Amino acid sequence: MPDPRPFAPELLADVVALTAAMCDIESVSGNETQLADTIEATLAAHAPHLEVMRDGDAIVARTQLGREQRVIIAGHIDTVPVNGNLPTTRVTDPDDGDILVGRGTVDMKGGCAVALALACRLPEPAVDVTFVWYDHEEVEASLNGLGRLARTRPELLAADFAVLGEPSNGAVEGGCNGTLRADITTRGRRAHSARAWMGVNAIHAAAPILERLAGYEPQTVTVDGLDYREGLNAVGISGGVAGNVIPDACTVTVNYRFAPSRSVADAEAHVRALVDGLDVEVTVTDSASGARPGLDAPLAERFMAAVGGAPAPKYGWTDVARFSELGIPAVNYGPGNPSLAHADDERVPIAQIRDVERGLTAWLSASI
Amino acid sequence: MPDPRPFAPELLADVVALTAAMCDIESVSGNETQLADTIEATLAAHAPHLEVMRDGDAIVARTQLGREQRVIIAGHIDTVPVNGNLPTTRVTDPDDGDILVGRGTVDMKGGCAVALALACRLPEPAVDVTFVWYDHEEVEASLNGLGRLARTRPELLAADFAVLGEPSNGAVEGGCNGTLRADITTRGRRAHSARAWMGVNAIHAAAPILERLAGYEPQTVTVDGLDYREGLNAVGISGGVAGNVIPDACTVTVNYRFAPSRSVADAEAHVRALVDGLDVEVTVTDSASGARPGLDAPLAERFMAAVGGAPAPKYGWTDVARFSELGIPAVNYGPGNPSLAHADDERVPIAQIRDVERGLTAWLSASI
Repeated sequence: MPDPRPFAPELLADVVALTAAMCDIESVSGNETQLADTIEATLAAHAPHLEVMRDGDAIVARTQLGREQRVIIAGHIDTVPVNGNLPTTRVTDPDDGDILVGRGTVDMKGGCAVALALACRLPEPAVDVTFVWYDHEEVEASLNGLGRLARTRPELLAADFAVLGEPSNGAVEGGCNGTLRADITTRGRRAHSARAWMGVNAIHAAAPILERLAGYEPQTVTVDGLDYREGLNAVGISGGVAGNVIPDACTVTVNYRFAPSRSVADAEAHVRALVDGLDVEVTVTDSASGARPGLDAPLAERFMAAVGGAPAPKYGWTDVARFSELGIPAVNYGPGNPSLAHADDERVPIAQIRDVERGLTAWLSASI
Repeated sequence: MPDPRPFAPELLADVVALTAAMCDIESVSGNETQLADTIEATLAAHAPHLEVMRDGDAIVARTQLGREQRVIIAGHIDTVPVNGNLPTTRVTDPDDGDILVGRGTVDMKGGCAVALALACRLPEPAVDVTFVWYDHEEVEASLNGLGRLARTRPELLAADFAVLGEPSNGAVEGGCNGTLRADITTRGRRAHSARAWMGVNAIHAAAPILERLAGYEPQTVTVDGLDYREGLNAVGISGGVAGNVIPDACTVTVNYRFAPSRSVADAEAHVRALVDGLDVEVTVTDSASGARPGLDAPLAERFMAAVGGAPAPKYGWTDVARFSELGIPAVNYGPGNPSLAHADDERVPIAQIRDVERGLTAWLSASI
């Protein structure tokens, strides 16, 4: 296999073209090597001022300028599966203007491209910077490249503030809600449905669970000045043995999205309280704490001043929570509408890519 | 393939041994040919007084004595799948006494064996008799051998009364409840569960369906002197797209077992009334009318007098309903506990086989 070729200087000069080029190197989770190799080759060719480390298909590149503070600029390089939406195309949409269309344009090659361009362009930023491009974000959490670095090489992630380039419409979204999934199971006793009185119907027993969920009023919780809307929802239900059998079990799967001021333990207690007094089993199957927005950190305040606009809360869970767990305040800041993240018609306004380029450049160039 | 050998005369003289021999010729639905061939060969060898017709793996054998009345004695020869429970064994159980254990002993080789023994033994019964052994009862209704005969050769099923040898603990069970299955579906709108307020949760919308089912009070309906207990139950529920998606559909599958005095249309109206006023779709997926017990027919009264005991209602749906649709009063009368019909430890008290042999012999031998 030939050595990967670095991205050309004219691509590094144009973040929109660079975004398209990074999208066109398909990198569905598990297949990130070619893109990671290309990023590594680009850094070797165009960013001799950076110290570069490779870990699997994650790349960490950092300045060592001896600044008092260090920030992380991070993004995942994998995407969800391609569905006839590569290579990218650049079109002018009557509503959205000039847009780049295709898998990865939103989630999140735009953010990755801006980071790569700045890594090459800014040899002497006002703070030390650690750039991180990582693998396996779109699949099960245990494979996540950022999580792997946090577990195995946490010293590489030492920083005072982090910016994650996840799509946020080019605005700053602080922190994120936590998420918890639990199975709530009722038990009954099987019987032939022709003699239903011999059994106990576990599906009927789920009625009060659904009633309470339907009547649940989600809260909005203000954390560090941002309003986090919560939600507690059934996302699945299953029960039944056969068309002529009274079912002996029914499971309602709920997903609780909770404000970052609550711990996972708080969230579990909240779900258990929902079914208080019902004869059910509750099993937490999955959870991740949220991340406080961290916008009261001095670096965050200067970041907001440099990029402009008002911060908003992030509702979806993102890897900013991993930084939060490491004690690093972190925000989402990237081009693209998160609602289009996994859509087949994934598309990003090119103006948003340039906005984010401008914002990060201003911040890293300003005296901090 | 050699011609099948008939059952030996000593088996025809002992209905318990004949039951065991018929069980030991495995005849899971779709694999009835060997047993059907053996029955046909037995009739050819030992019942020259009968006119025998073969239709697929169904066999119809009848006297043509010119009697004023004709009765049908019928049973299916197929079983549910074997699960390590063949060949049969004969054991003495501390609770149940002498029993025959194995697949088919209850459902329903005992009834088939009694019919075959009597077909050979009674050349001149008091009424004309049509014996029917048929295939494919334990699988989808469209394959049912008795249904096929009713559709394609209804003249073979002309009769004034029918006895179906389905397990009824050796007592007479009249008629059967009808059954109807329906899918009740709620609709919602998908959204990411992190932004639940953008969607409409279809599982939550199923709460009032389950509530009404849980609060439903089944009726007991007296038909021709027998009390039929009804039931209306959820037998399945499903909903959900993914662990992070507000679900846009939820389906509750209900099974209504209804007294034979109600029509299928009545039953459907009853299910629709249950969800009256709710924003749901109701789709009937499966239905079969019940059968009135028919115990007020003169032949039925004499049958009850001959076999003794008090009649009871049959709750489960059986092929007596097919006779009912043909206008033929019909009852279930066979050895074995119907609750053990498909159990891996299927087992029949041998006394019950002999009781049914005695009852049918007395009836067919008496002047009618």
